Amino acid sequence: MSFSPLIDQLISTLKYLPGVGNKSAQRMAFHLLQRNKEGGRQLAQTLSQALQEVSNCKRCRTLCELEVCTICSHPKRDPRVLCIVETPADIVAVEQTANYRGLYFVLMGHLSPIEGIGPEQIGIEQLRQRLDEGEIAEVILATSTTVEGETTAYYIAEITKSYPEISTTRLALGMPLGGELEHLDGSTLARALDQRSKVIT
Amino acid sequence: MSFSPLIDQLISTLKYLPGVGNKSAQRMAFHLLQRNKEGGRQLAQTLSQALQEVSNCKRCRTLCELEVCTICSHPKRDPRVLCIVETPADIVAVEQTANYRGLYFVLMGHLSPIEGIGPEQIGIEQLRQRLDEGEIAEVILATSTTVEGETTAYYIAEITKSYPEISTTRLALGMPLGGELEHLDGSTLARALDQRSKVIT
Repeated sequence: MSFSPLIDQLISTLKYLPGVGNKSAQRMAFHLLQRNKEGGRQLAQTLSQALQEVSNCKRCRTLCELEVCTICSHPKRDPRVLCIVETPADIVAVEQTANYRGLYFVLMGHLSPIEGIGPEQIGIEQLRQRLDEGEIAEVILATSTTVEGETTAYYIAEITKSYPEISTTRLALGMPLGGELEHLDGSTLARALDQRSKVIT
Repeated sequence: MSFSPLIDQLISTLKYLPGVGNKSAQRMAFHLLQRNKEGGRQLAQTLSQALQEVSNCKRCRTLCELEVCTICSHPKRDPRVLCIVETPADIVAVEQTANYRGLYFVLMGHLSPIEGIGPEQIGIEQLRQRLDEGEIAEVILATSTTVEGETTAYYIAEITKSYPEISTTRLALGMPLGGELEHLDGSTLARALDQRSKVIT
């Protein structure tokens, strides 16, 4: 038993959304068709416009409807520092610290042979060209601390090695603020111990 | 800090979907823009088509792109039995039992003065007209057993009272199959005890 063909089709296409299964898709379809038609119209229209207009920034590869994103084209950002992140959402996270004034390079993923994501998919060639321009003095590896993120960071560090004028750094590993020692995993605690710093009083 | 204007707008419109907050909307937007553009296009297109074509069945009020839904127009369904449910999904649930051959009437909600849903919004006038046609011999109240569902069932039972030829029934209340007595709530257990039936051996 199913609904009418068009409603069934709407439910299946809603399942393209990550994290949406059959029950949620059904609930979403009924909600849009019955309770929020105007919202549904806006969603369909914006989605279709975004799919047409959004592509990758020519400089940093982030998702953006401009040719060059606002950060890359900002005159006050420091072009000598390049922070390498996995996703556009990571840029937002770093920007929220309000501590960083350099530029970004977005891999749009991480190396993952299982998913068929190799150096080509994460824009390594474009990164090399960027480094070849000679303006960058520091590369900050800000990939995740997952296995894939660490592998990707290691892979990029191998590349930056051949640019002796570039200093390559990695985000510090340690206890998160507000974290309880008792609940911290062993590897993180080991790294935090290993990289302990002198208390300045 | 935010993304580009168009991506921000896509994220806000994705939040029209029930159960989708900021983080999920962001994940959905990036997924569609980066990993599944074709799926995104299909979603936008199907959603927009469904919003245009789907409306309510003239007989039972369920969501449907036909004037009269396939159940209402089915020649083999018994037109003397009318099962009253809250949503189109409830029809699917009842149909899956494969035990019911009558017709449906979908309230598309339940009485809820707080949400501004009164008799008019749940199609009571249309239900009265349906009862006036004189073909119906039994009305099965299959609303939920929530406060609103019970209130709605009671409200409709008051209406059917004035049709002496119609017998009004309500779904049985009791222990669900596979349920453990120990975890059953008190009110349900009380009803199950009260409405106990003789074991036929």
